[in-house]
Amino acid sequence: MIIDIHGHYTTAPKALEAWRNRQIAGIGVPAQMPRPSELQISDDELRESIEANQLRLMRERGLDMTVFSPRASFMAHHIGDFQVSSTWAAICNELCYRVSRLFPHHFIPAAMLPQSPGVDPATCIPELVKCIDEYGSVAINLNPDPSGGHWTSPPLSDPHWYPLYEKMVEYDVPAMIHVSTSCNPSFHTTGAHYLNADTTAFMQCLTSDLFSDFPTLRFVIPHGGGAVPYHWGRFRGLAQEMKKPPLKNHLLNNIFFDTCVYHQPGIDLLTRVIPVDNILFASEMIGAVRGIDPETGHYFDDTRRYIEAAHIDPENRHRIYEVNARRIYPRLDAALKAKER
Amino acid sequence: MIIDIHGHYTTAPKALEAWRNRQIAGIGVPAQMPRPSELQISDDELRESIEANQLRLMRERGLDMTVFSPRASFMAHHIGDFQVSSTWAAICNELCYRVSRLFPHHFIPAAMLPQSPGVDPATCIPELVKCIDEYGSVAINLNPDPSGGHWTSPPLSDPHWYPLYEKMVEYDVPAMIHVSTSCNPSFHTTGAHYLNADTTAFMQCLTSDLFSDFPTLRFVIPHGGGAVPYHWGRFRGLAQEMKKPPLKNHLLNNIFFDTCVYHQPGIDLLTRVIPVDNILFASEMIGAVRGIDPETGHYFDDTRRYIEAAHIDPENRHRIYEVNARRIYPRLDAALKAKER
Repeated sequence: MIIDIHGHYTTAPKALEAWRNRQIAGIGVPAQMPRPSELQISDDELRESIEANQLRLMRERGLDMTVFSPRASFMAHHIGDFQVSSTWAAICNELCYRVSRLFPHHFIPAAMLPQSPGVDPATCIPELVKCIDEYGSVAINLNPDPSGGHWTSPPLSDPHWYPLYEKMVEYDVPAMIHVSTSCNPSFHTTGAHYLNADTTAFMQCLTSDLFSDFPTLRFVIPHGGGAVPYHWGRFRGLAQEMKKPPLKNHLLNNIFFDTCVYHQPGIDLLTRVIPVDNILFASEMIGAVRGIDPETGHYFDDTRRYIEAAHIDPENRHRIYEVNARRIYPRLDAALKAKER
Repeated sequence: MIIDIHGHYTTAPKALEAWRNRQIAGIGVPAQMPRPSELQISDDELRESIEANQLRLMRERGLDMTVFSPRASFMAHHIGDFQVSSTWAAICNELCYRVSRLFPHHFIPAAMLPQSPGVDPATCIPELVKCIDEYGSVAINLNPDPSGGHWTSPPLSDPHWYPLYEKMVEYDVPAMIHVSTSCNPSFHTTGAHYLNADTTAFMQCLTSDLFSDFPTLRFVIPHGGGAVPYHWGRFRGLAQEMKKPPLKNHLLNNIFFDTCVYHQPGIDLLTRVIPVDNILFASEMIGAVRGIDPETGHYFDDTRRYIEAAHIDPENRHRIYEVNARRIYPRLDAALKAKER
């Protein structure tokens, strides 16, 4: 079985974006603010948006199951206040839930949170609880920078975030650390902000003792860990100078990297440097890079090809494809076992 | 010959830091502001600080020449106003110049600029001109984020920076794109901010047509290019979606990466992915990572060992060590030829 732990609903029917645009236009103009009930998307429309896109590619690539969350760049937590984010998160999470009900053997939801700059992350707990309890979400996406590229929140190691971590530990769900659109003109969203956030989050954990406080807390750092595996020696050396334990003990019981690295040399480095138990298969397909690589003739985001071509034995490949995901996402494992029965 | 194009004066006599602390304490208190002449460092002190450190390691590692600039983390352009930065840059650049005069066969200067957040970069031109004309500086260090982690400046592709580029083109000097200390608690200086800045700068160039406006402008992106080579497929794919030319044509006549990547797998990836003509040998020794790697028994920043062990032929190694540096830093080449005569 091959589990893609990093899928977003990037292909939602256009009505979603139209509603969001009305919501944004309605900020500060209550009379113009649309009601959630004004967004009408039928099951057929959902089916079509998935079958023609993610499901088609999953079949072509031999992928079985995707952990599916709302489109990352559309979370845009910097827009509006908590109420705006709350309404928007509820809508997006419900759509992913509906997709998972329509395609129960192929999609399982992960939740976005209604974060908002300067607002206590504890305000996100009701949406988190609803998504896990009612929608069967197996993970959350946690944005370390809800300001959208201005980085005004405390580091992930700050007690600011602890109420969320306590709930994650209680429910035994991991968080993918994933920013959204950059509204800072310095940072291109998918070419700089995403990768910078991955590196930044890792370093925030490295300099802290967060996982002493939360030994079972689990973070998935996407996009192959940003710059981290490429600079693994630098990070090992920095930890050593700070008198931290070796990274294997200090961080690798709690931090995992996905395989969203869109060329063979990058995947080769990832699998050479990072222990296999810390690598999770993922593609983020129909995401940042949708084209075909002229050097290979295949889609850049067809990451299975790179894993197949990497110098790893079949048992380790199986861990990357399935075993690790079941371990790090126990609610995914439970859901899969329930389906297998 | 082996040229290390990325060295900073991290070992300057303590008097320098003491003077800087007095300068910072004097901001807004003119009576307390120290005069530059109050900083007294003898040639013997300079010699000692170099012979016991950089020069000793250069000899041990078989390196011949270092392009030597003021300590990057001490530039701290976010502190004070232009006048504060201007006085500080003049002091630091003069020290590197004096080192280059004391050890003319081993050090050649590169200049820091008196940047200040919100101040027109054209104000840096007099210091730049002085350093090139009087000190023989062969390059500059350009900070794309003088705010120190708040990223308030326009992207490098913005005409904001063009006056500097015009002067660089006139003098035919490259710029290393190098940030300084982060004062944003989200970003660890050497573990996140440096690498993020490298990735960010590359992406700012990718999304623009800067090098159409300045075909001979040359940027060196340090720390192995941040996350860029590891995610080369992502960047190739993003450029393709933006209808930019292939990266080789779009950026690689103007952008070069150094080898400050502190483990073998990282250097192996760099030399596999990036054309050899775009790689410059560097160590940034006695910098961010000063320890010994317990996995190898050698210093993390002894990057020559990784280049020696990489699968590249002697001719290409020679390019990385010397040929490329002479081409991209023509004033270095001229200075070396003058010494050889």
